[in-house]
Amino acid sequence: MASFSSSCLLLLVVFVFVFDIAIGITASIPSYFPGGAALHSSLKKSGKKIPYETHYFPQNLDHFTFQPRSYKIFNQKYLINRKHWQKGAPIFVYTGNEGDIDWFASNTGFLLDIAPKFHALVVFIEHRFYGESLPFGKHSYKSAKTLGYLNSQQALADYALLITSLKHNLSSDASPVVVVGGSYGGMLAAWFRLKYPHIAMAALASSAPILQFDDITPWSSFYDAVSQDFKDASLNCYQVIKASWAELEAIAAYKQGLVELSRSFRACKKVNSIYSARDWLWEAFVYVAMVNYPTEANFMKPLPAYPVKEMCKIIDGSPPGTTKLSRVFAAASLYYNYSRGEKCFAIENQADEHGLHGWNWQACTEMVMPMVVTKESMFPPFSFSYEEYADECMKSYGVRPRPHWITTQFGGTNIEQVLKRFGSNIIFSNGLQDPWSRGGVLKNISTSIVALVADNGAHHTDLRGAVEEDPEWLIQQRKQEVEILHNWISQYYLDMKHST
Amino acid sequence: MASFSSSCLLLLVVFVFVFDIAIGITASIPSYFPGGAALHSSLKKSGKKIPYETHYFPQNLDHFTFQPRSYKIFNQKYLINRKHWQKGAPIFVYTGNEGDIDWFASNTGFLLDIAPKFHALVVFIEHRFYGESLPFGKHSYKSAKTLGYLNSQQALADYALLITSLKHNLSSDASPVVVVGGSYGGMLAAWFRLKYPHIAMAALASSAPILQFDDITPWSSFYDAVSQDFKDASLNCYQVIKASWAELEAIAAYKQGLVELSRSFRACKKVNSIYSARDWLWEAFVYVAMVNYPTEANFMKPLPAYPVKEMCKIIDGSPPGTTKLSRVFAAASLYYNYSRGEKCFAIENQADEHGLHGWNWQACTEMVMPMVVTKESMFPPFSFSYEEYADECMKSYGVRPRPHWITTQFGGTNIEQVLKRFGSNIIFSNGLQDPWSRGGVLKNISTSIVALVADNGAHHTDLRGAVEEDPEWLIQQRKQEVEILHNWISQYYLDMKHST
Repeated sequence: MASFSSSCLLLLVVFVFVFDIAIGITASIPSYFPGGAALHSSLKKSGKKIPYETHYFPQNLDHFTFQPRSYKIFNQKYLINRKHWQKGAPIFVYTGNEGDIDWFASNTGFLLDIAPKFHALVVFIEHRFYGESLPFGKHSYKSAKTLGYLNSQQALADYALLITSLKHNLSSDASPVVVVGGSYGGMLAAWFRLKYPHIAMAALASSAPILQFDDITPWSSFYDAVSQDFKDASLNCYQVIKASWAELEAIAAYKQGLVELSRSFRACKKVNSIYSARDWLWEAFVYVAMVNYPTEANFMKPLPAYPVKEMCKIIDGSPPGTTKLSRVFAAASLYYNYSRGEKCFAIENQADEHGLHGWNWQACTEMVMPMVVTKESMFPPFSFSYEEYADECMKSYGVRPRPHWITTQFGGTNIEQVLKRFGSNIIFSNGLQDPWSRGGVLKNISTSIVALVADNGAHHTDLRGAVEEDPEWLIQQRKQEVEILHNWISQYYLDMKHST
Repeated sequence: MASFSSSCLLLLVVFVFVFDIAIGITASIPSYFPGGAALHSSLKKSGKKIPYETHYFPQNLDHFTFQPRSYKIFNQKYLINRKHWQKGAPIFVYTGNEGDIDWFASNTGFLLDIAPKFHALVVFIEHRFYGESLPFGKHSYKSAKTLGYLNSQQALADYALLITSLKHNLSSDASPVVVVGGSYGGMLAAWFRLKYPHIAMAALASSAPILQFDDITPWSSFYDAVSQDFKDASLNCYQVIKASWAELEAIAAYKQGLVELSRSFRACKKVNSIYSARDWLWEAFVYVAMVNYPTEANFMKPLPAYPVKEMCKIIDGSPPGTTKLSRVFAAASLYYNYSRGEKCFAIENQADEHGLHGWNWQACTEMVMPMVVTKESMFPPFSFSYEEYADECMKSYGVRPRPHWITTQFGGTNIEQVLKRFGSNIIFSNGLQDPWSRGGVLKNISTSIVALVADNGAHHTDLRGAVEEDPEWLIQQRKQEVEILHNWISQYYLDMKHST
């Protein structure tokens, strides 16, 4: 049996198991971007209605070549809420990320909350190759020939065309457009403002790890941050988790180990590998760190306020003599079963319900975010090698990553110097509970490229709809965002007045 | 016989004849961008050596898709002069346009002139699909399947990769890069600074008509400007040219008209259509307006200082009784035969020597610059229709233009408002003699996006190497450019010092 401390390749495989990706490879860590069809299906199941009209835009397949096939048209889904809209007023556009757009809309209540103040139109655009926006229908994920068109540059160009056309159709060409996004959607929002300043006059990029590429951010930072969250909640909790992997590993040595593991982990079907259990636990810890929200919320799954603390309470509060593995299992159960609806856990095939995972393709082409786990982390160590990563991607998709393309295309290195005298009107908001914040912009770059950092914030907390229980700091953060946007928009109208 | 005043389609056809484009369609007016292999061949003939080492960079075919074929590599040519280079010092990069890079290098002496002051490296990068940088070798122009990869976005991405790699190989990653270009190359330089601010810290965009798209600049402006140049030189000259087309048209009514025309135009071979003669004259007037330089020069062809004035002297000074057509022929002869080497003129097949004309493809896909000739112009009127233009392009290349793509991708509309608070460090230089200046940026947009306008300047006059006869205004303009660049570069080094 391979040790937990073996190379990143093992981890790649492990993540494949977590997400049960048919295509055979995964995006290593970036798979933790909370998109994907998993949530889509849970949303559909919930039957929750979102307050948006659904539309479809005839979008070009390929904006950057002019071959006959480039002109193929597909239907790109977008959502509109015009309840508060007045012609000429601002348009808030959510630049959709790697998942069904309905799901993002229902988890980004902030935009509708603030729309009345601005008389704003609110638009959510679905990212190509996700949700219903499939350029080749059910064949979209067939091979690199079809998937080749799934990337950030094409997505940004989609947004540029769609927004321009929409404004024109609304006879509101002069409306200021603010692009907004969280996570990868936040990266897209920031990049869109930088690449298409003539279309969006401002961006609110929440939890956007645009510096998680190349060597800009230390490769260990993500898992260090997850570990820190748990350590901050309870040093003992962190130590128990850290030590639990050895207990799990030891199980594989027993003849009946996996049977016993399946029983104690309440697996619906017998677990065939301890790696499955490891990933199942691992995923719970990572996602809970990301969504360590200050209020009860249902983003990835329904969870109580500050779920990291709640998990640690379980670990710390278990009766004396409880094994470490039992404690971490109990903690993970909080993540998987807070709503208490699960009779057993689909440890190995939980991802069957997740559907499409375009992010794995994106991570195997341009979105290469190298990550490692060091000995200081609470996870089993692993390393990263560009070469091995590329080999795996080649094996799975028939193409090799372009690991430095994102920084060539969008920058990131020396961002403070580059943007000190270039660009404007971008808010980078981050919550330090979120491990992705380590790859975000955490310091003001200029008077109009600003960073809002919330010590207790998690993954794009600010974009969630306001609830009564919101803590004061969150109320203040959102207020600050509204004020900044308000100032920029006022300036826009003033400039417009002067230039005509 | 069709009247000269018929639709733009006629003009399209006419231009085809001018340039003898095998593929069957032309770029309408943008063909007048002075690139193309014509000049390459004349340069080769001259045997002139340019002070650059030639290199080739393994370039990606397609930066914006990740299909197996996207990874095809071709050799992109670039030139380097390291005579004055000191590690860490600035790198001046000419962003090559639609022609052989050697030709641009030999007509952009300014960069080598100023290199010693900056201890700068000077690099000229050839644009894909021109000169030797042919992704599919001799099959590069075969069809839309190959030509599809010829466009501005791919070219900019080429430059981004090449520059990044070059700096890295020189172990001079922190060197400030200034991109420089004239005409379409100037457009690329400005756009490169806007899209890749992390790679180029400044741009000098000379005679870059980035506003010649959509409805930003009046469609009649280009030919109005050519006409104005001639009117400014001599009202009579302008009137003679304007009236000459009717004389030419009348020839077609005579049985022996074309024979007579061939003789009087000293055609090497019998002229088969009066349109050929029209285009031949037309081309001379347009190019002479563009290269109305204040000194003797050899850009398109060898010409005296202020050639518009010289042409008008010929027209105005012809003996009384000389027909208008004879006068304009004599004037055009100045353009075609200033060096007095031509025994006869290749009126209809002069373009055989021109070789590749990728610009026609570019004009039929993204570089759609609508132009019309109004009655006030000295040219025969013609109109422009997007639909007819698209039909012609479809017929020739099998694809339709995306006529609003450039403004979607790069902006241009309301540029003053958009860039007032976005971007920095771009010089837009223009000479008002140049008809392309009408589509250029002629007013300062901010303190660091500035316009230098020379009343007597022509098509990127400032980028030419200094000669003794240069007028004071040109010396001053270049001095101003050097000062501005010097300030920006000093600021760059200062910022770098503060950020480390």
